[in-house]
Amino acid sequence: MTPRYFDDFRVGERFVSGSATLTESDIVGFAQEFDPQPFHVDTKAAEESPYGGLIASGFQTLSLGFRLFIDTGTIAACSMGSPGMEQVRWLLPVRPGDTLRTEARVAEVRPSGSKPDRGVLLMDYEMKNQRGEAVLTARAIHLLRRKGERDA
Amino acid sequence: MTPRYFDDFRVGERFVSGSATLTESDIVGFAQEFDPQPFHVDTKAAEESPYGGLIASGFQTLSLGFRLFIDTGTIAACSMGSPGMEQVRWLLPVRPGDTLRTEARVAEVRPSGSKPDRGVLLMDYEMKNQRGEAVLTARAIHLLRRKGERDA
Repeated sequence: MTPRYFDDFRVGERFVSGSATLTESDIVGFAQEFDPQPFHVDTKAAEESPYGGLIASGFQTLSLGFRLFIDTGTIAACSMGSPGMEQVRWLLPVRPGDTLRTEARVAEVRPSGSKPDRGVLLMDYEMKNQRGEAVLTARAIHLLRRKGERDA
Repeated sequence: MTPRYFDDFRVGERFVSGSATLTESDIVGFAQEFDPQPFHVDTKAAEESPYGGLIASGFQTLSLGFRLFIDTGTIAACSMGSPGMEQVRWLLPVRPGDTLRTEARVAEVRPSGSKPDRGVLLMDYEMKNQRGEAVLTARAIHLLRRKGERDA
């Protein structure tokens, strides 16, 4: 992929990631470290929960979704980090064996008012499972380096 | 801690977690799996980045912050998961050796209009480092079981 900088992004552009499958071990392992609620770590308790079985922590889904996007290389040359996210929505449970991919769409671009080396890009993320159902949506705020600033 | 249910929460109530320290190994390990950007995984590249050194992935900070809250037991008896979060803000970099804790404050409570077994609670989270500086804020939407519904 040709290196992209802030100025290369256009509102409406879309980027689609590769896919990843979450195993029961992945789900339980992440949750034991970060989100040890019964429906994430305990098969039997999960079966008796409103979810009827183990589901992935939303933090795992979110983190994996971003990893899949990072692997597209879209912001590899220009990412300067992120000050935040808006409207994270966990729409459907993610279960062992589910295969997820991430679609990203440029929602807004604006040069920084105070720092000439960067711009702010709002990106809308949607993660889908193997049935094409949206399981997560979120809008992230990205700080992206402007063209030429790397060498300035 | 006495088991709490939706009806036990009052707007303005606060809960303070224990603390956890992130090592360089923690930071690099998480980022290699979920957020392999140079300033999260590569010490030398991080030194040359705007951050001047390795910083934790925001997804790790967020996940750890929730883990610290979960460990308070506040929603252990009643959590039915979460449909989302609003206004996640990564305010300051988190660096190797930083010690973090989470403060949670009840922002809003409302019984579910459609499901009598649960209510919606909005919780404002703030994570602070060892200098008392806020590194992350976020508002999470929690679905909490109402009292007695466990046995219904």
